[in-house]
Amino acid sequence: MTTRQHAQQLDEASTLAHTRDRFVLPPGVIYLDGNSLGAVPVGVAARLAQVVADEWGTGLIRSWNALPAGGGDWMGLSGRVAGRIAPLVGARGEDIHVGDSTSVSLFKMMVAAARLRPDRRVLVVEPSTFPTDGYIASGVADLLGLELRWCDPEDPLASVDDDVALLNLTQVNFRTGAMYDLAAITAGAQARGALVAWDLCHSTGAVPVDLTGAGADFAVGCTYKYLNGGPGSPAFTWVAPGLGARQPITGWMGHAAPFAMARDYQPAEGIGQWASGTHQVLALSALDTALEAFDGVTMDQVRAASLSLSDLFIRLLDERLPQLEIVTPRQHASRGSQVSFRHPQAYAVVQALIARGVIGDFRDPDIARFGLTPLYVSHTDVYDAVEHLVGVLDGEEHLRPEHQVRNAVT
Amino acid sequence: MTTRQHAQQLDEASTLAHTRDRFVLPPGVIYLDGNSLGAVPVGVAARLAQVVADEWGTGLIRSWNALPAGGGDWMGLSGRVAGRIAPLVGARGEDIHVGDSTSVSLFKMMVAAARLRPDRRVLVVEPSTFPTDGYIASGVADLLGLELRWCDPEDPLASVDDDVALLNLTQVNFRTGAMYDLAAITAGAQARGALVAWDLCHSTGAVPVDLTGAGADFAVGCTYKYLNGGPGSPAFTWVAPGLGARQPITGWMGHAAPFAMARDYQPAEGIGQWASGTHQVLALSALDTALEAFDGVTMDQVRAASLSLSDLFIRLLDERLPQLEIVTPRQHASRGSQVSFRHPQAYAVVQALIARGVIGDFRDPDIARFGLTPLYVSHTDVYDAVEHLVGVLDGEEHLRPEHQVRNAVT
Repeated sequence: MTTRQHAQQLDEASTLAHTRDRFVLPPGVIYLDGNSLGAVPVGVAARLAQVVADEWGTGLIRSWNALPAGGGDWMGLSGRVAGRIAPLVGARGEDIHVGDSTSVSLFKMMVAAARLRPDRRVLVVEPSTFPTDGYIASGVADLLGLELRWCDPEDPLASVDDDVALLNLTQVNFRTGAMYDLAAITAGAQARGALVAWDLCHSTGAVPVDLTGAGADFAVGCTYKYLNGGPGSPAFTWVAPGLGARQPITGWMGHAAPFAMARDYQPAEGIGQWASGTHQVLALSALDTALEAFDGVTMDQVRAASLSLSDLFIRLLDERLPQLEIVTPRQHASRGSQVSFRHPQAYAVVQALIARGVIGDFRDPDIARFGLTPLYVSHTDVYDAVEHLVGVLDGEEHLRPEHQVRNAVT
Repeated sequence: MTTRQHAQQLDEASTLAHTRDRFVLPPGVIYLDGNSLGAVPVGVAARLAQVVADEWGTGLIRSWNALPAGGGDWMGLSGRVAGRIAPLVGARGEDIHVGDSTSVSLFKMMVAAARLRPDRRVLVVEPSTFPTDGYIASGVADLLGLELRWCDPEDPLASVDDDVALLNLTQVNFRTGAMYDLAAITAGAQARGALVAWDLCHSTGAVPVDLTGAGADFAVGCTYKYLNGGPGSPAFTWVAPGLGARQPITGWMGHAAPFAMARDYQPAEGIGQWASGTHQVLALSALDTALEAFDGVTMDQVRAASLSLSDLFIRLLDERLPQLEIVTPRQHASRGSQVSFRHPQAYAVVQALIARGVIGDFRDPDIARFGLTPLYVSHTDVYDAVEHLVGVLDGEEHLRPEHQVRNAVT
């Protein structure tokens, strides 16, 4: 049987032991839900206080330009954040736009893709993807008179034929943590003439991604999960350089010269055209500081720590709770940075764990999932979480009435 | 000649003298650019600190629900902010969505309008509007195969015929401060079968608006100008109840049951469908507190104070600088809450004023404009600003080389 001492030894050997201090974690909590909302990075509160007091409060409108005393330059903020995200996804900052929600970003990207393949009428989406991808695709299909085709999750390429404009896949499944081979699927779909877009919401900052190496066409990602940007922080969109894609929400910030205030729209060059409205300065500032948690950290280090954590989690479940059906792949190449299992009372099990200070989350209909953010989750966290899970199930704590009551947000 | 003592008397008589203390204004600055970015309301810094430390930091993912100790309930935050905006525009909170940028909101609204009038192929926009309105309309026209028609700013209804699906107008012009008669134009366009959408970016919180009384169809507004929500704060969209409009960015937050995570999209009832992505919690929290500055204030009070300020500004310009061409209408019914004049060196004049601590702004090609936010701008501010303007022009300070150099953002 694996011991807590073994978990401690793994923590001591981790190359990311030092990054836990880059986060403010509440006492008494084991936080395994960073794949839904990342924890608060140290420095974010101070950054927001400084932005409000100095940049907004004293600089006022002048802070769209760089301030003489430092700070401001809000016009360049989105680009600076893009530069921080770029190395996490194998891309250049100048090909990344940061702004809008993931849903709005998916919409822009899907419309742009459809326009690049005007003779193809099908958008392919994987049915177990995070639902907003399919919802947005259905809206785009309705709007443009296209067909939405659901593919087999086990074989997405089987649905890609000469009618397909775009294959849109989430790299890491939000329920199971299963991960696609991004490079192989990209090549396969492109060989059939389709464009390929990757939803990186559950991979960015958790697993290495090489968009450039894979030659993908588009990617969209979330910044409030493994990037810890705060609730509702803006999404990012990557567009392959040279693709010539044009997004349809042609707002003033995507104009070649926004402050000329000309009547007619002239798109900015390159990724600049992907901006629509005024930059979300408060949220971008929080995100800019949050991304400092990745300073000096390579994605190979993150991946090694992530797999070590999920390997331990799976081993402990196998040893102590073999009756549970683990739905997260055991093969490293197919696993993201979470561990999920099925339980007929999964909602109540998660609530009972939360009552013990172990925060994971539930996904309909029967999935309990536990995100492993390598920057702040330790092997002893994982060990203790499984101990609590054993305690919940042994003590039938999940059967208590208070754990059956559904919250508004589950 | 009007004296500073007279301005002081007007301040003493103002029913809004007390609301200036609801803002943090930097010493030595007269801020007349609240129509571009409102000043910081008292309480916003503390609210953000509390949201980061308690709701995000300690509550973590649980804060999407109401927290036992108070706070959280992030799912209801957008609706609470909508309830604060509602009385400022003559609407019900349950018909207002708060989220996304103004540009994205305009896009959603224009597509929804076009779908409600499928047999009409023209979108009418006024060419001197804030440019993003025209840019978005041109993008929507491209996307849906519609025609963008520019109307005569003096007579928008002349362009509304049986082919027009939507007339989109900005109520208060961002350059001149000229204001349309919202009710009369709405009725005129609707009599020709067109839908009417109002861009309230330069009116909300500055002039009384009665969307319900006017029977308008749509409105979109900015919250970082006269509502003081902070740089890049989310926009709001109002949709007339019963219109049956459906916006096209069908993201998960607009689903009838987002957390069911079902594969297929089912729109939420009413305004709920207008949400797309995850709510912008940090920005919405700041905005929620910012709107407390309107507590106990009626829009009639705001309007009276605004007109008193702009009347004084115009009178002082007439007396002291009669050579300036004031482009803001002198009739109250046609005036928003700003004063603008032309000057061949308007950019440099504004820069020279900023060097003296009077912050207004410049708009291409030759407009100097000064926003009058009644909650924090006083009559003595206006008096002193005009004194500084006289000083700049008499001393030819605008001819100094340093005031000719263009910033990145002008």
